[in-house]
Amino acid sequence: MTNLTVGPTACLILIGNEVLSGRTKDANLQYLGTRLTELGIRMSEARVIPDIETVIIATLNECRAKFDYVFTTGGIGPTHDDITSACVAKAFGVALERNAEARALLCRNYSSDKELTEARLKMTEIPVGATLIDNPVSNAPGYRIGNVFVFAGIPRIMQAMFEGIADTLVGGAPTLSQAITARIPEGILGDPLAAVQARFADVEIGSYPFKKEGGIFGASLILRSPDAAKLDQAADAVRQMIRDLGAEPLEGDMV
Amino acid sequence: MTNLTVGPTACLILIGNEVLSGRTKDANLQYLGTRLTELGIRMSEARVIPDIETVIIATLNECRAKFDYVFTTGGIGPTHDDITSACVAKAFGVALERNAEARALLCRNYSSDKELTEARLKMTEIPVGATLIDNPVSNAPGYRIGNVFVFAGIPRIMQAMFEGIADTLVGGAPTLSQAITARIPEGILGDPLAAVQARFADVEIGSYPFKKEGGIFGASLILRSPDAAKLDQAADAVRQMIRDLGAEPLEGDMV
Repeated sequence: MTNLTVGPTACLILIGNEVLSGRTKDANLQYLGTRLTELGIRMSEARVIPDIETVIIATLNECRAKFDYVFTTGGIGPTHDDITSACVAKAFGVALERNAEARALLCRNYSSDKELTEARLKMTEIPVGATLIDNPVSNAPGYRIGNVFVFAGIPRIMQAMFEGIADTLVGGAPTLSQAITARIPEGILGDPLAAVQARFADVEIGSYPFKKEGGIFGASLILRSPDAAKLDQAADAVRQMIRDLGAEPLEGDMV
Repeated sequence: MTNLTVGPTACLILIGNEVLSGRTKDANLQYLGTRLTELGIRMSEARVIPDIETVIIATLNECRAKFDYVFTTGGIGPTHDDITSACVAKAFGVALERNAEARALLCRNYSSDKELTEARLKMTEIPVGATLIDNPVSNAPGYRIGNVFVFAGIPRIMQAMFEGIADTLVGGAPTLSQAITARIPEGILGDPLAAVQARFADVEIGSYPFKKEGGIFGASLILRSPDAAKLDQAADAVRQMIRDLGAEPLEGDMV
C-alpha cells in the first residue's frame, strides 16, 4: 500500500465508555471520515477511549502534537460522567471557567435563571482561550482550542457543529477517487493487481471483496489520488487487467 | 466517573484505510465490546489505523505492552493492501513464513494446486510461533501470537474467529449492570445523580440522554459493577432519586 501523505492530517478521538462496552454504536467516525475526505483532509487515525481523566489527557496531548487537526466527540453534557472539558483544560494547561457567552447561548433554552441548574452550568465551563462552536440543535456549545475541536457525541449535534466550522478547515488538494468492480475473486485478482499498484505508486489502490447471492464473488477496487491524470491512467490499467482476466470491468463501488 | 479496573483489559486495533475514509462502516467494535463485557474483559481502548506499515507496527507494540489482550481486524486477505501479517511479524521480531497447516486449510477451497495463486498463498503467510485460529466461513485462518489475536475484517468471519477462541480468554468477574430510565432531562438529573455517584465509588454510573417524539426528554442511567450487592444499593438510590424528582423510575435502557 502506498502512503499518500498529501494534505493535512486529522485524528478523531471518540470519548465514552458506552462505545467501548458495546452499548452504543458509534455513528460519528464514518460521518467525519467521509466529510474530511471531501475537504482534502486525511483522517489518519481514530481512537475510542474511556471516560478516564488520565487517558483523555494523554491521548489529547499525543494526538494534538501528531496531527494537524484533532476532533473529539462525547463527554460535554451536564452529568458527572461528562469530563471532556475538564480534561481539555488540563491537557492545554489552562483554567476551566464558566463562560459568559456560553451561558447566554444556553439561556435561550430556559425562561428563568432557576432552570440553570449546576448540571446545566457545567455545560458553560469552557477552557480559557477557546472559541465557541455553535450548537443549532440544543444551544450548549462546542469549542475550538488550538488545533482541537471539541464536539458533542450525539450524532445530530456533532454533525451540526462540524458543518458550522467546516469552512474554517484548510484542506489539501482533494483526493480524487474512482471505483471499479470486478466479478473475479480476490485470490485471482490479487497478483495482477499488485503489479498495477507497483506501476502507480502515486495512486492508492484498495481492494474490497464481496460475495453476493447466487455465489457471485468479486471485489470493488477503489483508486485514490490527488492527481487526476495518474488516477485515470491507473484506472485504465485496472480495467485492462480485468479484461485480461476474462471479465468486464463494472464502473462503481458495488460492495 | 469512577475508574473500574477490575479484570483484564483489551484493546481492539481496526486496520484499514477504508474505515478511516468513511467508505466502510465498522461493525466489529460493537460486537467485540459487547462480547468482551460479557466475558468479564474490559475493552479499554480501540484504535482505527491506516494500512501503513510503520503505524501498524508501532501501534501493535504499544498496545500489546499496555493491555492484557489485543485484537486486530483487517488486512489478512490476498491483495497487496493486506499487510497486517507482515507487520505483526516485524512487531514481534519473527519471520513470516508460509505455514503448512494454513495451506492445508486453504486447500479445502480448491480442487487443484493451480488455483493456489501467489495471492492466495499470501494468506498462508503466518508469523513464526503463532497458533492458527479457525475460519469456518472461508478457511483462510487467523492466528494468535503472544497476547495478540489477528482476525479478518469481514464481520461474519471476525465473529466466527472470535467465537472460536472466546473460551480460551481468561475473564475477570463479569461486570454486572442495571439500567434505569428517567423521563427527566439530564440538566435536572445531573446534580442529584452526581451525589449518588459520589456515594457509590465502586459503581460506574453512565447517563445517556434521549429525546423522543412528542417532546419527551430523559436519560437512561446504566450502572455497572462486579459487586452485585453494591450495584443493588446504588440502583435503589437512583430509583429513590428519580422519585424525589417527581417521576417514576422505569426499568431498562430506553435509548
